[in-house]
Order: sequence, then C-alpha cells, then structure tokens
Amino acid sequence: MNDLAAEEEDPGLDTRRVTAILEAVEAADAPRLAALVQPLHPADVADLLEQVSAPERRELLALLPDLIDGDILSELDESLREELIETLPRAQLAEAMRELDSDDVVDILEDLDAPQQQEILESLDTADRAAVEKALSYPENSAGRLMQREVVMAPEHWTVGETTDFLRNAQHLPDQFYHVVLVDPRMRPTGYATLGRILSSPRETRLRDILEDSFRTIPVTTPEEDVAYAFNQYHLISCPVVDENERLVGVITIDDAMAVLDDEAEEDMLRLAGVGETVSIADGPFATIRTRLPWLVANLFTASLSAFVISRFESTIAAIVSLAAVMPIVASTGGIGGTQSLAVAVRALATRDLTSANAGRVVRRELLSGLVNGLGLALILGIGGWLVYGDWRLGLVLGMAMIVNQVVAAMGGVLVPLGLERLGLDPALASGTFVTTLTDVMGYLSFLGLATVLLL
Amino acid sequence: MNDLAAEEEDPGLDTRRVTAILEAVEAADAPRLAALVQPLHPADVADLLEQVSAPERRELLALLPDLIDGDILSELDESLREELIETLPRAQLAEAMRELDSDDVVDILEDLDAPQQQEILESLDTADRAAVEKALSYPENSAGRLMQREVVMAPEHWTVGETTDFLRNAQHLPDQFYHVVLVDPRMRPTGYATLGRILSSPRETRLRDILEDSFRTIPVTTPEEDVAYAFNQYHLISCPVVDENERLVGVITIDDAMAVLDDEAEEDMLRLAGVGETVSIADGPFATIRTRLPWLVANLFTASLSAFVISRFESTIAAIVSLAAVMPIVASTGGIGGTQSLAVAVRALATRDLTSANAGRVVRRELLSGLVNGLGLALILGIGGWLVYGDWRLGLVLGMAMIVNQVVAAMGGVLVPLGLERLGLDPALASGTFVTTLTDVMGYLSFLGLATVLLL
Repeated sequence: MNDLAAEEEDPGLDTRRVTAILEAVEAADAPRLAALVQPLHPADVADLLEQVSAPERRELLALLPDLIDGDILSELDESLREELIETLPRAQLAEAMRELDSDDVVDILEDLDAPQQQEILESLDTADRAAVEKALSYPENSAGRLMQREVVMAPEHWTVGETTDFLRNAQHLPDQFYHVVLVDPRMRPTGYATLGRILSSPRETRLRDILEDSFRTIPVTTPEEDVAYAFNQYHLISCPVVDENERLVGVITIDDAMAVLDDEAEEDMLRLAGVGETVSIADGPFATIRTRLPWLVANLFTASLSAFVISRFESTIAAIVSLAAVMPIVASTGGIGGTQSLAVAVRALATRDLTSANAGRVVRRELLSGLVNGLGLALILGIGGWLVYGDWRLGLVLGMAMIVNQVVAAMGGVLVPLGLERLGLDPALASGTFVTTLTDVMGYLSFLGLATVLLL
Repeated sequence: MNDLAAEEEDPGLDTRRVTAILEAVEAADAPRLAALVQPLHPADVADLLEQVSAPERRELLALLPDLIDGDILSELDESLREELIETLPRAQLAEAMRELDSDDVVDILEDLDAPQQQEILESLDTADRAAVEKALSYPENSAGRLMQREVVMAPEHWTVGETTDFLRNAQHLPDQFYHVVLVDPRMRPTGYATLGRILSSPRETRLRDILEDSFRTIPVTTPEEDVAYAFNQYHLISCPVVDENERLVGVITIDDAMAVLDDEAEEDMLRLAGVGETVSIADGPFATIRTRLPWLVANLFTASLSAFVISRFESTIAAIVSLAAVMPIVASTGGIGGTQSLAVAVRALATRDLTSANAGRVVRRELLSGLVNGLGLALILGIGGWLVYGDWRLGLVLGMAMIVNQVVAAMGGVLVPLGLERLGLDPALASGTFVTTLTDVMGYLSFLGLATVLLL
C-alpha cells in the first residue's frame, strides 16, 4: 500500500499521487498522508493545495498541521496564501518566515494587508525586519523588491586565494550565488567573476583579471519587467543592484527574473483575452466573476454601438432580409484579423521587437497583409455569396466590405497597442475590446452602407 | 559626433542609437557605424538587424562585412538567420560556428535545410561534428537537442581539494557551469554540488557531503516543454541529462530553459489569437499573410455556419427588423465570455495547474461563473432593450438568450481545451475558432429561436 510513497526519489505531482493523497485524507490516515506528501517538492505541495477543493484542503491541513513552511508559502498563489496565513498559528508563521531569504519574505509580505504585514514583521529578528522594511520602501514591482540583500562581494585587489579563504570562513552565505562582485572602497560594483572562473584559476590570480565581459548593474528603482527583459536579452544569471549613488545594495538572480517573465507573459495573454487580473486555479467562482464581469459589461456597451449602426440600416434590411444573415460574416472575420494583428503587436511590444525604429515598417506590413488577406477572403466570400444568393451584386458588396474591414482590422490591431504604449498604458489592457469594437462597427457599416448604395 | 559611440559601457539599443546607426549607414560612414555597433551586445545587434528594413540591412552588412559572428547568429530569429547564412561567405560561417558551444550550433542547424546543414557540419572540427551529429540524432524539441555535452563531473569519492585541482588544470571548461556533477563508475550521476558550496568548503571536505537536495536528472528524450516546466517549478539552475541507461550525456542550463518557456508562452498567446506559427518582426508581408490567411479562411467557413442559422429565421427578422440590430450583442458578448474562459484554461493547462485532479471542480466553477455573469448581463441588456424598444418581451428574450450563451461560452471555453488536451493535441491550437463558432451559433440560435416563440 505504501508503494507510491516510497517509489521515487523526486516524485512529481501526478494524478495517481493526488488520488492516493485524497484517499488518505478521506480515510483520515495521517501517517499515510505524511508518507505521500512529505517527499514532494514545496512547489508541488503548493500546487496540491491549489488543486484540491477547499474542504479537502482544510481536512488535509488538519491531518498535517505542521505541513506549511516558508518554502511552501513562497510557492502558493497569492489568494490562497493570504487565506492560509489567516489560519496559521502565529508561532508557525513566524518560524516559516525566519527560514526564508529576505527577498522571499518581501514577496510574501507585499501582497498582504497592513495588519498582517505588521504582525509578520514583528515576528522577525531585528536584522531581518530592517532588511525587509528597507525592501518594502522601494516602489512596488521594482528591482528593490526583487533583489536579495545578501551579496557575496570582494575588494578589487583580492586574489582567488583570498576570496576562497574568505568564503571558507564566512558565517552566512546566500543559498544560491553565482558571482563574486568586486566593489571599490565606496561600495560601487566594478565587475564580477563567475564562481567557475574563480574555482578554476590558480590562487594567486587577481579577481580583476578574470572578470566577465557581460557585467552590468541594475538601478534599484528599475521596474521588474525591465529587469526580466535584461536577464532574458543578455543571458544574465545574476546581476548586482545599485542605489542612486551607484552603491551596491543587493543582487537579483535568474530564478526571480524567470518568475517575472512568466508572470508578464501570463498577464499579457489574459489581458488580451479580457481577463482583468492574474487568476489562480484555486479561485472560487466569485473571484472568477470579479475578474471577468467588468470586461463583459464593457463589451456589452461597445457591442451596443454595433447594434446602433445596424439599426440605422433597418430599412435596407427590411428590403433584403438575407443581408441580416450574411452581415456577421464580415464582422466576425474582421474580428479574427484584428485579433491576429493585435496579438503579434502586443507580443512584439512586450519583447521590444517593435520599437519606434521599425513601427512605420510594421504598420505598412500590416496594411499590405490586411489588404491581401482581405482580397483573398473577398474572392471566396464574394463568389460564395453570388452562388448561394444568385446575385453577383451581393457577392460584390460582401467582397468589398470584407476588404475594407480586413484593412481596418490589420491597422487597428497594430495602431491601438502602439497608441496605448505611446500614452504610457499597457498595450495588452484594453486593446481587445477596442479592436473588436472597431471591426464590428466597420464590418456592419461598410457592408450595410455598400448594400444600401448598390443593392437598393 | 562620436558621443553616442563612446557614451556607455553597456549601451542598449534605444531609438537614438538606431537613428544614429541608420544615419551612418545612409552616409556610408563605416568607421562611425563600427563605433556605434561594436559596443552592442550580440543580442542587441541581432535585434538591430531584425528591426531595420531589408535594404538598410544589406547596406549595413556591406559596410561591416565581418560583423556577423556565432553569437549574433545564435540570437537571430530563424527566418532572418536562414537568409543571412545563405549570403555569408563560407569561411566566415565556418569560423562563426567554431566559436559556439555544441548546443548553440545544434540550435542553429536544426532550422536549416539539409544542404545548408551538411555544409556547416563539414566545416566543423571532427570532434565538434560528432557532438552535433549526435545531438541531431535526438528527437526535435527534446532535452537531447537543448543540452550541452560539455559537463563538469567528478568521481563520487573526490574531495573539494581534488575537484579544485582538477578544475585548475582542466584544458576546456564550459563557458558557464554551476554545479559539479558526481558520477559513479558507470557514469551515472548520483548528485551534484553547487560551485558556491565547493568554494566555501575546506579542501578536505568530500563532495558527497555537500550535495544539493534539489538534485534530479532529465531523460534525454524529455520534450523541451517538460524541461522548461521542471526548471520553472523546481527553481533549477542546471540539470544533468541521462540516456536510457541512466548515464550522464549532457547538462541543460537555465538560460536554455528560460528561452523555451518564453517561446512556449509566445506560441500559446499567438495560437489563441489564430496566428499559426511563431512570427518575427522581421517577417515581410508575405510571411505574415502565410501565418494568418489559413485561419481567416477557416473562420470564414465557421462564420458561414452562423449565417446559415440566421437565414433559417429570416421570416422572424422580416417581421421584426430590430432583431437584426440587437442579435450581434448576444453573440459578441458570448464570444468575449468564451475567450476569457478559454484563455484561463489554456494557461492553466500550460502551467499544469489544471489537471484531471481538479478539472471537475474548475468546470463547475466556470458553469457557475458563466451563469452569474449571464444573469448580470441579462439584467442590464434586458432592461436596456425594454427601454430602447419599449417592449418588455424583447428585453426578456435578450436576457434569456444572454444567460444561455454565457453558460455555453464558459463551458465551451474550458471543455474544448480540456478535450483537445485529452486527445493529445495542443489546447491552444484550434480552441479560439471552435469556441467563438460555438458562441456565435448559440447566440443567434437562442436569441432568434426565443424571439420566434415569444415575440411572433
């Protein structure tokens, strides 16, 4: 029966294990539950807690009251983390926080309410509390919040041997570090050496002779998305953070940058789809409704704009009722074309491939591709409309409206996000609603307008 | 005049620099161009080449014929890389390839045609060629393609001192490495120690006493998306890769995993928006059309399905023409609701937060949130319709159709990607078209059907 528990050294969270865990919860079999859960990585325990239902989670935590530690808290989605922190005994919470590096404590604290923040801060050691409070004094989503304050550094004149001796005698080293940062007497970083180069160089080598070309620093107020961009663009593994006087105040490591990059991609994808905030799979129906209903209501009003446009042509529709059946084809295909152009532009803005240097050329490319796509679709739809309704003029109107709308769609898809970016807004934010409103309105307007002129 | 060229140690590719570069190209001023381009990081040079127009690129490369090296080739988008490789002198290409680690050569080669591949392979040293050919023998998009074959390893009995001496005497070490991997006499990895732990431990310490808990290995045939997931989930920095006999064959580092994660997020976002393939900002209009037109044509046919549904109700519309104006509101809001639910589900599947363990609960949550959103929208639209058209029965029909369609949208948004995943297909792939077709058809059908029953 304990096969699964003992099976692997680094088990993942597969369906079999989740099922076995839920059976153990159901049977209130704490020893078996512990055997199944304890080999899991904290990230998998967090996923487990997010995936089970709220009652299952409560029973599981009642059976394993000591389960939640700092690492698991770090891995949890915000909403669930907040909920668990509410219910955790104060002593256990304080203990969990003390295990963590200062950047992880900051990451947890910044999402909490002021009273919860205060309570946790009070439970920390004086030194940790000062470090965390300092980090919280930097702007939200800035390098200062992301960095860890523990940096391994050395004076510029040190040799490999001196550095090694220093490291061997150091009391507290960060869990993970990849470089030794050289600082001048004013604590300004002047370069760094990888641990690999240090380890493989003779003791008498000077650090300054084995520095990396890739060295750069990040100002402490840099927005975290710029930090993630720099790590991804320049293949950084860790990067010193400096204050306004160029003095070393911390270091950011690639795992933090990777998490930001992943969050940014998720945010862009969800915002494009009209989901307001980051969501968690553990969210209940009401959290889900809160992130979606506002956008749906906004869309209700923008869709009413299309309805208004159509209502202006009621006499045309009354004369030729078939127009009502075919008109959504032009609007819908326009919506797809606009969404394509939009997704490419939003992504290119996020990766900084679309800049003012090439915006003009990208817009011309979109114009041309909208025109050609429109021509291709117009040919198919025009001939189809002619064959189905036996009227070549209806085919002509469909085709012409399609060309107009595909061009509008392609242009809107790139100009709306470029405009939002220019205004300092997130291009992913409202673009979808803008662009589909545009393609709907233009689709109905061009089709019904042309039909009124050419068919009546 | 040379201000920009000399200004910074690690300049980025901002608009001012691009403008200055294009002016130097225009003026055919090779020395100034070199001064502006050479301080740039290879990733920024690649971005520059992607951002300028094709003629500008040709002139720039004619002025700086030696610019392209292995690092820049590595950073370029596929399509442009292929184009440049065509035009590069053979000797320069061979030289560029020799500079690179085997994983980067593989990354470049795998996108090329067979004759180009062969030519580059022939230009490599025998050892490098064997390494690259071996890597190409692994499945596409597998760990075997992603890994580098150069691994720093040590027998299990070694001490820190022996390891340090070995590293100091090693002829070829990888550019970047973060662990020393312990292997048994059969070359099976048994653990790893971070360079930080090795550097900070006394010489007599045995490596086996300072191993990391986080140790795990990746089978060489693992799909690259699973590799990226493991790095992100378990905060890995590097991970040994093993063959079917558990023997060490290579190592994957976090920068490669980060690139895969970023690509996967881009692919999901673009596929959801109906853009077929990964795109580059350097793509011309015709490459752009090729990635979009097939989806537009597919949508043309699915949109015709809605037209067919509406055409069945032409007598209803002929009786009450206003129906034609308001019916798109129900369809359009359904499309948004479906897209919201879909984006959340596709993302949760990609991050493995949505699994068979919680699929049932997530579907119930979507059902409930679709119902509540539908009720909220129905109230607004129902009252609005009643007020505008002065007919409470029209308001009732609008409201009822809205509720039906929001529920269908929420269900379709989660069930379609779950179904595609179950079938082993990419949930992002066709979901958008399926779901909006569903919401369009159901929107028109429920609204016109109810109108026929209740209003005529």
